[in-house]
Amino acid sequence: MTAIDLNSDIGEGFGRWTLGDDAAMLRIVSSANIACGFHAGDPRAIRSTAAIAAERGVAIGAHVGYRDLAGFGRRDLDVASDDLVPDVIYQIGALQALAASVGGRVSYVKPHGALYNRIAHDERQAADVVRAVREVDPTLTLLGLPGSVVLRLAEEAGLPTAREAFADRAYTPEGRLVSRRESGSVLHDADTVAERMLRLVETGELVAVDGSVIRFEADSICVHGDSPSAEAMALAVRERLVAAGVQLAPFAAR
Amino acid sequence: MTAIDLNSDIGEGFGRWTLGDDAAMLRIVSSANIACGFHAGDPRAIRSTAAIAAERGVAIGAHVGYRDLAGFGRRDLDVASDDLVPDVIYQIGALQALAASVGGRVSYVKPHGALYNRIAHDERQAADVVRAVREVDPTLTLLGLPGSVVLRLAEEAGLPTAREAFADRAYTPEGRLVSRRESGSVLHDADTVAERMLRLVETGELVAVDGSVIRFEADSICVHGDSPSAEAMALAVRERLVAAGVQLAPFAAR
Amino acid sequence: MTAIDLNSDIGEGFGRWTLGDDAAMLRIVSSANIACGFHAGDPRAIRSTAAIAAERGVAIGAHVGYRDLAGFGRRDLDVASDDLVPDVIYQIGALQALAASVGGRVSYVKPHGALYNRIAHDERQAADVVRAVREVDPTLTLLGLPGSVVLRLAEEAGLPTAREAFADRAYTPEGRLVSRRESGSVLHDADTVAERMLRLVETGELVAVDGSVIRFEADSICVHGDSPSAEAMALAVRERLVAAGVQLAPFAAR
Amino acid sequence: MTAIDLNSDIGEGFGRWTLGDDAAMLRIVSSANIACGFHAGDPRAIRSTAAIAAERGVAIGAHVGYRDLAGFGRRDLDVASDDLVPDVIYQIGALQALAASVGGRVSYVKPHGALYNRIAHDERQAADVVRAVREVDPTLTLLGLPGSVVLRLAEEAGLPTAREAFADRAYTPEGRLVSRRESGSVLHDADTVAERMLRLVETGELVAVDGSVIRFEADSICVHGDSPSAEAMALAVRERLVAAGVQLAPFAAR
Repeated sequence: MTAIDLNSDIGEGFGRWTLGDDAAMLRIVSSANIACGFHAGDPRAIRSTAAIAAERGVAIGAHVGYRDLAGFGRRDLDVASDDLVPDVIYQIGALQALAASVGGRVSYVKPHGALYNRIAHDERQAADVVRAVREVDPTLTLLGLPGSVVLRLAEEAGLPTAREAFADRAYTPEGRLVSRRESGSVLHDADTVAERMLRLVETGELVAVDGSVIRFEADSICVHGDSPSAEAMALAVRERLVAAGVQLAPFAAR
Repeated sequence: MTAIDLNSDIGEGFGRWTLGDDAAMLRIVSSANIACGFHAGDPRAIRSTAAIAAERGVAIGAHVGYRDLAGFGRRDLDVASDDLVPDVIYQIGALQALAASVGGRVSYVKPHGALYNRIAHDERQAADVVRAVREVDPTLTLLGLPGSVVLRLAEEAGLPTAREAFADRAYTPEGRLVSRRESGSVLHDADTVAERMLRLVETGELVAVDGSVIRFEADSICVHGDSPSAEAMALAVRERLVAAGVQLAPFAAR
Repeated sequence: MTAIDLNSDIGEGFGRWTLGDDAAMLRIVSSANIACGFHAGDPRAIRSTAAIAAERGVAIGAHVGYRDLAGFGRRDLDVASDDLVPDVIYQIGALQALAASVGGRVSYVKPHGALYNRIAHDERQAADVVRAVREVDPTLTLLGLPGSVVLRLAEEAGLPTAREAFADRAYTPEGRLVSRRESGSVLHDADTVAERMLRLVETGELVAVDGSVIRFEADSICVHGDSPSAEAMALAVRERLVAAGVQLAPFAAR
Repeated sequence: MTAIDLNSDIGEGFGRWTLGDDAAMLRIVSSANIACGFHAGDPRAIRSTAAIAAERGVAIGAHVGYRDLAGFGRRDLDVASDDLVPDVIYQIGALQALAASVGGRVSYVKPHGALYNRIAHDERQAADVVRAVREVDPTLTLLGLPGSVVLRLAEEAGLPTAREAFADRAYTPEGRLVSRRESGSVLHDADTVAERMLRLVETGELVAVDGSVIRFEADSICVHGDSPSAEAMALAVRERLVAAGVQLAPFAAR
């Protein structure tokens, strides 16, 4: 039976502020990238979302980011290795303790935002992240962009890795993300996206932005929940996959 | 052979800012209360001080505090239980992962500043701290003020506890700290303090502020390192104890 | 012609996070309490909301609070005068410059959350706030709770003051707010609230929680916009007042 | 009579943490770059250092930086214009109000750290800073690196500008700073530096790193105070200049 993982960012509020409907998204996805406090995610939200995830069998991942609440971790920050390695360890450790306190367990790490983008190509910061994850627990899976520097370094270091496809993004014939600056880079129709993801899961095929059909291997599909329309698309993807008999399960559990 | 523990606050800088000489203090004490990032202590400093502590056999404690960098955790903050419990777990978990990454292990928890003072008498916040520590690891020792509400609740909850004496503070005949608002509450002469602590360790006796001799049981002596004179006093206490044949060892290891 | 001011908290997002619909609320109220960055409100949001307020003739007030983003300024914080006075000046000054940069002007100050509640009775912190406002500009109006310590001290210091009524709150026969801990303290029916505020404005009468009719003098009515239902109630109050021929105008302009 | 300005970073502590001896440095320099809270500088420290500066006739400048306390504003941060412009206005406004509250006045702006370096070459961020300063007050002087993009844009926009020389840095024959990555980029001998600065002030000549003599125009000399040796060098520069009859006066006052 075919199986795939659905992941989404969870717990992205902070104090009084919320973002999306975490409880609803935790009924849709099989893996939750939980914010760890540096770009979003206060301890209360971490604990409550980890509790729901644990209860529902949703895998818990550390969504580690740059220390930048005002910028939501989306601004490139030039962090030295002596800071970045402990910053990542700190965030994972905080989540581990909170997850454990509600019966959960951190099984993977997914870098967030500007850090995610940076370590797709920056060897130094990518190596820092790999080192941090390994020092915490070398059995943690690193979830990231196929073809990225960080996944290559993680594999070389013996860390388990998982590759994700973005449900709502267009890809080049080379299998790379079409830049957000270009028109057509983001897909908006939920049904189209759902059908596209089903084809990817069943056949490993993805239609690139130029219409060509490419091979694309993914262990997880990233969906969003930070707006009602995003949540609707996430639900559409889930329902289409389930209707076709695809099993949804955390990559980290396989 | 008589033994005692010396504890001090460590890693109280943040980013560019330092406070005291951590490396020097880690040659003086047997237990390090390492700041966890909420009132002081960035991940880099946590990691580097934990590494030195681990190397020297100094016990590592989580110095958990209110989230108040600007106030250094010294301002009373009315934190709800739904925040305080996860706030404490978050800090301990972050330190655990960083300590483990350099070969160390968190063996105790000492609340800091305003939180320390608050839970000496506030049942609700004291219960929150006890709950948080137990949920992380019920073998962690809670280090605190003899006679405080939090130590009583910790004992009732089955958590190991340790009682500390403050080297530089005067005590009432009832064994309570003389308020800082009263003259004579803080002792400044290093030799006097060292002699006083030796007597405490050897005989369990402490001269109260009115000259009477009281019984005082302590598992650890708290010394400071946030100024050159404080560090000198800490060193004087250590040297006097060692010269008298007292063994310095972490309470948490006994 | 009878006139009244409507005030509401504005600009309470931070970075990625928003709270309520500021643009919509700035069509309802005549005075905007703009968050200044300590409990909410990043510079971008301050600037954009001040620009809309300036364009629409909505008075701009500094919504100053404790430095506590995680607690949204709602947690009691024991801030020393040497910090509180400059903290308040800092926030007002920041807002002044941003308001001026978009053609606006700060005309009043309304303390937020826990600070608001604290200075209703705490003489020391109340005096600090009054001092801070006067040092920035002694023509700024202090908007607060009728009968509060801070309004009394402000008047004694020669600062202009304005008294507010909370549209959705019940009052005791003595004209004090019914504690939120008691049932019936918060009113939920928009029409009832609108009618109640019209009576207050036209006659100076308010029905207390025990059914008695009391005299209540208010220069402004506080409405909320942090949820769709709150916004609907604010709109209902505005429309009822306007339909009855009441003029809505900033107290600070009168 | 020859005159020059000496500027230094002031108020770079935060809460419990201090950096250098501000009171001592305010006896040495004629212009104080006061941190505004984003990379360092709490309101209390801003107010107290501004008070000393005002009392001594030291010019007050806004030392604006990226929002990055953990990195002390020294890490490159990719801030969008919609954030950077209001971020800079916010900081200047906060300082203006605090300076005014103690009888001072902000007369110039000097960007700090990574922002300073970035706008030496980045047109977009440089334009943002120029725009922000002009929107606050077009008579504020922008103090910066000779030949930098930001000074050029400031001049084009009609903003007063001032150029600074770094007392302890080596320069290329083209008048540019030798990169800190190269040996010899930082000068350590106080007497050499003092003599070098005297020659610069008296003759406009500076010996470049290759031994050649270049022309260098400066309105201000930047000295440091963040360590005892830095403070000693600053004092040596001041004393050498004064002994030679050079008048020390704020550029902003000329």
